[in-house]
Amino acid sequence: MAGKTSDLLFRRVALIGIGLIGSSLSHVIRRDGLAEHIAVAARSQQTLDKAMELGLADSATLDAGQAVADADLIVLCAPLGAYAGIAAAIGPALKPGAIVSDVGSVKEAVIRDVGPHLPAGVHLVPAHPVAGTEHSGPEAGFPELFQGRWCILTPTAGTDALAIDRVKMLWERAGMLIEMMDAKHHDQVLALTSHLPHLIAYTIVGTATDLEEHLQQEVIKYSAGGFRDFTRIAASDPVMWRDVFLNNREAVLEMLGRFSEDLTAVQRAIRRGEGDTLHEIFSRARELRRGVIAAKQA
Amino acid sequence: MAGKTSDLLFRRVALIGIGLIGSSLSHVIRRDGLAEHIAVAARSQQTLDKAMELGLADSATLDAGQAVADADLIVLCAPLGAYAGIAAAIGPALKPGAIVSDVGSVKEAVIRDVGPHLPAGVHLVPAHPVAGTEHSGPEAGFPELFQGRWCILTPTAGTDALAIDRVKMLWERAGMLIEMMDAKHHDQVLALTSHLPHLIAYTIVGTATDLEEHLQQEVIKYSAGGFRDFTRIAASDPVMWRDVFLNNREAVLEMLGRFSEDLTAVQRAIRRGEGDTLHEIFSRARELRRGVIAAKQA
Repeated sequence: MAGKTSDLLFRRVALIGIGLIGSSLSHVIRRDGLAEHIAVAARSQQTLDKAMELGLADSATLDAGQAVADADLIVLCAPLGAYAGIAAAIGPALKPGAIVSDVGSVKEAVIRDVGPHLPAGVHLVPAHPVAGTEHSGPEAGFPELFQGRWCILTPTAGTDALAIDRVKMLWERAGMLIEMMDAKHHDQVLALTSHLPHLIAYTIVGTATDLEEHLQQEVIKYSAGGFRDFTRIAASDPVMWRDVFLNNREAVLEMLGRFSEDLTAVQRAIRRGEGDTLHEIFSRARELRRGVIAAKQA
Repeated sequence: MAGKTSDLLFRRVALIGIGLIGSSLSHVIRRDGLAEHIAVAARSQQTLDKAMELGLADSATLDAGQAVADADLIVLCAPLGAYAGIAAAIGPALKPGAIVSDVGSVKEAVIRDVGPHLPAGVHLVPAHPVAGTEHSGPEAGFPELFQGRWCILTPTAGTDALAIDRVKMLWERAGMLIEMMDAKHHDQVLALTSHLPHLIAYTIVGTATDLEEHLQQEVIKYSAGGFRDFTRIAASDPVMWRDVFLNNREAVLEMLGRFSEDLTAVQRAIRRGEGDTLHEIFSRARELRRGVIAAKQA
């Protein structure tokens, strides 16, 4: 399954977890011949069978320690809450010079949970490819998922520059733009651009699920008025998102606090019938949309 | 521009306002030859010129009263806040037997603002085609906008059944499914499925616009993590939405109150690190998404 030798970035890659991101990354590695061997570890045999069936793995195992043996690059593609356990399991099996990376949506937690388990001579390069869909599982992946999106790397000071470069090259080959960032800053920015939107979408859909059954059916029926977009976001993997909120608590609560204040102001404007205030808020929001379009992230 | 005589539903249709919905409706009428003449009224000559240029109008005027003269069907496609003024202007010019309808997202307000200005023998059939995009203006329209979506009619008791049927047939030709509903009930259901999602999207995008400039640029850059979907919704016409909130105040505040309570509960679960609570809320939300997909409204 390998490509031309010149395309090879790694001899052996281990993907720990093979959901939407892991499987999409596997597709990229296959497409461009970036590795000779992809070893996949997952928690269920069913997932492993599916991964093999889809050609996402050259070898598949329930034992993460076994998957990482002799691997040059290990990418954690599991929910954040599983990182500490995975790191403890793979730590002793990592070969010197191996690079450990991940795809998690929170980055300080990675340094906290994974770092202590890595032996000397193993390089930790946390990464966050900012891309996704509402679908999950190994069948959900596709190689174009990352195209034109940003990948944020958050290595700590003193991390081996060559190791960082290798991870950078991997995501560049996936079509991503690369940004380096401090882990704490990453977590603050993403709290607003990703975590808060998901939290709000989950909450409003939750509000609807509390309605009486007949009203709930109507909400579904007439969801094309805006609600359906929230249901799409709220269809994302519940375990992954639970772990995001538990692992980026402070930043999420901070952004949630700002949002709640703003919501209260809007609520007051509606109650008082202050049309000008509403119009101004809505017009400014439209401006920011233009920025998103200009940045080609629409 | 007329179709076969058998396709004709109305001889002369007047569209008061020619934004996203008005222009899309005009496209449908053209495509299927549903009227002999489309008269368009708008508040600016520029909009009228554009409407003529796009072939959306057979005649165009700044004077709504002139547009409705001799019209069989008049459809208000302007922001809700303009309804009372438009109704006062067109009332005296309406011919006996004419049908006045609209496309507004709030329905009790239509009965309140338009009803009193209509002479005896004119039929009021409020309608809400639940469809849209984030784009506005006469260039934004396209005939497939309504396909497979619901159109809710909210005539008051005693409204002429034939008039209701004519409006129903119009939207059926546009590809819509028809539902009849009490105006008050409509306003409650749509407060959750449409008004609250827009309000929340506007608010969270507003929260981002309050950030320091450099952080705001990062929010735009990494918006693919969820935020961009909110910016799309928040790109909708600010005047139209201001008027929705001012005209459906009670129902929106009621739904906003429920949402705020739920948000507080989620906030508490995050602060306390209650993963099970979060997982349960997120999983239920995913279920509702399945309902939306099953109802073909995704």
